[in-house]
Amino acid sequence: MLSHAQLATAMQRAILLAHRGPAEDPNPQVGCVILDAGGIIVAEGFHNGAGTDHAEIVALTELDPTLDPAELTAVVTLEPCNHTGKTPPCAQALLAAGIGTIVYGQPDIGVESSGGATTLFAHGRQVIGGIESVATAQLIAPWHARTGQTRGHTIAKWAQSLDGRLAAADGTSQWITSATARRHVHIQRALADVIITTTATVATDDPTLTARDAAGGLLVPAPDQPLPVVFGAGPISDHAKIHGHPAVVHRGLDRAPQFTGTDLAADFAQLKDLVGCSPRVFLETGPRFLTAALAGGLVDKLLIYTAPTVLGGPYHAIGDIGISTLEERLNFSFYGVHRLDTDLVTTLRKDH
Amino acid sequence: MLSHAQLATAMQRAILLAHRGPAEDPNPQVGCVILDAGGIIVAEGFHNGAGTDHAEIVALTELDPTLDPAELTAVVTLEPCNHTGKTPPCAQALLAAGIGTIVYGQPDIGVESSGGATTLFAHGRQVIGGIESVATAQLIAPWHARTGQTRGHTIAKWAQSLDGRLAAADGTSQWITSATARRHVHIQRALADVIITTTATVATDDPTLTARDAAGGLLVPAPDQPLPVVFGAGPISDHAKIHGHPAVVHRGLDRAPQFTGTDLAADFAQLKDLVGCSPRVFLETGPRFLTAALAGGLVDKLLIYTAPTVLGGPYHAIGDIGISTLEERLNFSFYGVHRLDTDLVTTLRKDH
Ligand SMILES: NC(=O)c1ccc[n+]([C@@H]2O[C@H](COP(=O)([O-])OP(=O)(O)OC[C@H]3O[C@@H](n4cnc5c(N)ncnc54)[C@H](OP(=O)(O)O)[C@@H]3O)[C@@H](O)[C@H]2O)c1
Ligand SMILES: NC(=O)c1ccc[n+]([C@@H]2O[C@H](COP(=O)([O-])OP(=O)(O)OC[C@H]3O[C@@H](n4cnc5c(N)ncnc54)[C@H](OP(=O)(O)O)[C@@H]3O)[C@@H](O)[C@H]2O)c1
Repeated sequence: MLSHAQLATAMQRAILLAHRGPAEDPNPQVGCVILDAGGIIVAEGFHNGAGTDHAEIVALTELDPTLDPAELTAVVTLEPCNHTGKTPPCAQALLAAGIGTIVYGQPDIGVESSGGATTLFAHGRQVIGGIESVATAQLIAPWHARTGQTRGHTIAKWAQSLDGRLAAADGTSQWITSATARRHVHIQRALADVIITTTATVATDDPTLTARDAAGGLLVPAPDQPLPVVFGAGPISDHAKIHGHPAVVHRGLDRAPQFTGTDLAADFAQLKDLVGCSPRVFLETGPRFLTAALAGGLVDKLLIYTAPTVLGGPYHAIGDIGISTLEERLNFSFYGVHRLDTDLVTTLRKDH
Repeated sequence: MLSHAQLATAMQRAILLAHRGPAEDPNPQVGCVILDAGGIIVAEGFHNGAGTDHAEIVALTELDPTLDPAELTAVVTLEPCNHTGKTPPCAQALLAAGIGTIVYGQPDIGVESSGGATTLFAHGRQVIGGIESVATAQLIAPWHARTGQTRGHTIAKWAQSLDGRLAAADGTSQWITSATARRHVHIQRALADVIITTTATVATDDPTLTARDAAGGLLVPAPDQPLPVVFGAGPISDHAKIHGHPAVVHRGLDRAPQFTGTDLAADFAQLKDLVGCSPRVFLETGPRFLTAALAGGLVDKLLIYTAPTVLGGPYHAIGDIGISTLEERLNFSFYGVHRLDTDLVTTLRKDH
């Protein structure tokens, strides 16, 4: 495995390449480099505008066919696309080429095009998102502005049984989902700017909330790790692991930031001051907070891991969100449906 | 649209063709005919044993390429397979060929191969299953016996929100899922021998429980319609629509059969006497009966329609199934995951 420094250097090179593409175009500027097992660049590419090959395809085309693709790492500024537009999906091309590791900077937030990273992960590839997140965000910002996409959004993540339970009647919940699904969560964490937990969840689980790889190391370096923020009026222990979270330490804070959550909308609006941008917020809380965030209309996307099991009983993932009749329901749209080992992962975005 | 008589005649021909294939083989005997808009046979085929083309492929190969495929109807004794084994999936071949209507006799109950009909339906094809169900069941019976597959099984079907609710707090539930998903249910009904409802559901909904097409006509003729059976000790109105169900009338009964459900396992064991075979049972009940059937270990498969909406509140699709700790959970395996319009349909089978 290459070091974070090697991946960051390669990503900086990919950003440089991306700038060679047209700045004003229906498509974003994207760059890609492919590294061998020693971190040497063996191919590179950039996207030269709508209708031409995507950066990954350009790089794959110039690859020496005698190299073992499983040993190679593709480093792309933007998540490889997952849909057939004017060109076939890059995620499929990377899969077909057998590239072992895929590293990217920004998630693709297009309704049609997103999901490439999960496709690659579901096929057993090593996937790391969020490398050089600030610089790659700056690269993509003009395109987001042109297409009216907003960078910041709030993703509610939960794991549940088929019937919407997150624990059995005695409270046991480890593990409902497979190890593969739990590893996938770490990739999603790495893409977030802020990760929200609660006083209640810290008290019961004392989570670390870092984005980690399968071996337990950091998936992305400290500056790219999501900042943990605790919601709740109650106290949190001085010894809670999140105070030592690399994103907290990196910012020179001695504790994770805390909000009471009395006025959720107002508190959410303050999160951007913590990270300097309209943040991607990842909710990893228990059901009470999830329910409050949904009821408050603060959730833009859902990331639901469903285990193929029926539990029944009192532990519902979502409680009463204040909907009295069917017409008031919260509507979303599926934009990603993937099998991960024994589980199903679905992603949805809010309808407007 | 061709008449039931035309489809039945074509299916009888397909059964004849199927018998030309080897009787002792790892694969089942399957026959296929393709009809034009006037019901004339324009191509036919049968499966000549493992490793050779499936019946549908043989028939597609001899098709006149000047015919408009959207006008054609493929009639197959067994649901077109959905997986790549020694040959590519027949569902994909039928899709690629553009065949407008697919009619089949028996569902494919293989873990890997099933789901072809849903794939075709999800791509907008007209799909009818269960035509000549008795004769096609007889055709496939020796293969089921050889492979240890059991014909009869119980499928619990329900429609729910992402968070496992089937109605809003005021009880409104029409319609959680899309019209497409509701039409898909009718194909599943047509494949069943028995369809179970309850005194409670009859009292509130007075369902017809027929397998119907988009125009409201019978999807399969009376002999192939599932027999409705009511569970519950309470009375059901003499005017309930199920008493006029074509499968009830066809059998010369004046009412739908009824069981108290006091001893569910014993009552389920008696269902075979009603239909003369180990039946495919389709549960279309409310949550109380579903919960009891799951708790009693009587459910082999799940068919869950999930709408992309969050409802919260008190109407859970599944209640308390008597599981106290995670290790006691009911485990299933996903074997089908399909998008149907805005919804997701998943099928699961019980782990043993
Ligand atoms: N399956 C999963 O994906 C997952 C993920 C995380 C946690 N969990 C589990 O969830 C359990 C905790 O769940 P929980 O429902 O008890 O707690 P929770 O939802 O994690 O947190 C509830 C707490 O959030 C704080 N809060 C701040 N603003 C709030 C608001 N507007 N509305 C509601 N709460 C607000 C309150 O803290 P104060 O009382 O301090 O004000 C409240 O007590 C733990 O056992 C944990 O293991 C599961
Ligand atoms: N979303 C869907 O897919 C769907 C499908 C069907 C129905 N529904 C809705 O579900 C509602 C009815 O649900 P429900 O939960 O009240 O009723 P239910 O589950 O449909 O039926 C409960 C009744 O089943 C009978 N029963 C027989 N054996 C039983 C056993 N072992 N355990 C439990 N019950 C047994 C009992 O009748 P006796 O009291 O007569 O003994 C009991 O009252 C209706 O409003 C209907 O619209 C929804």
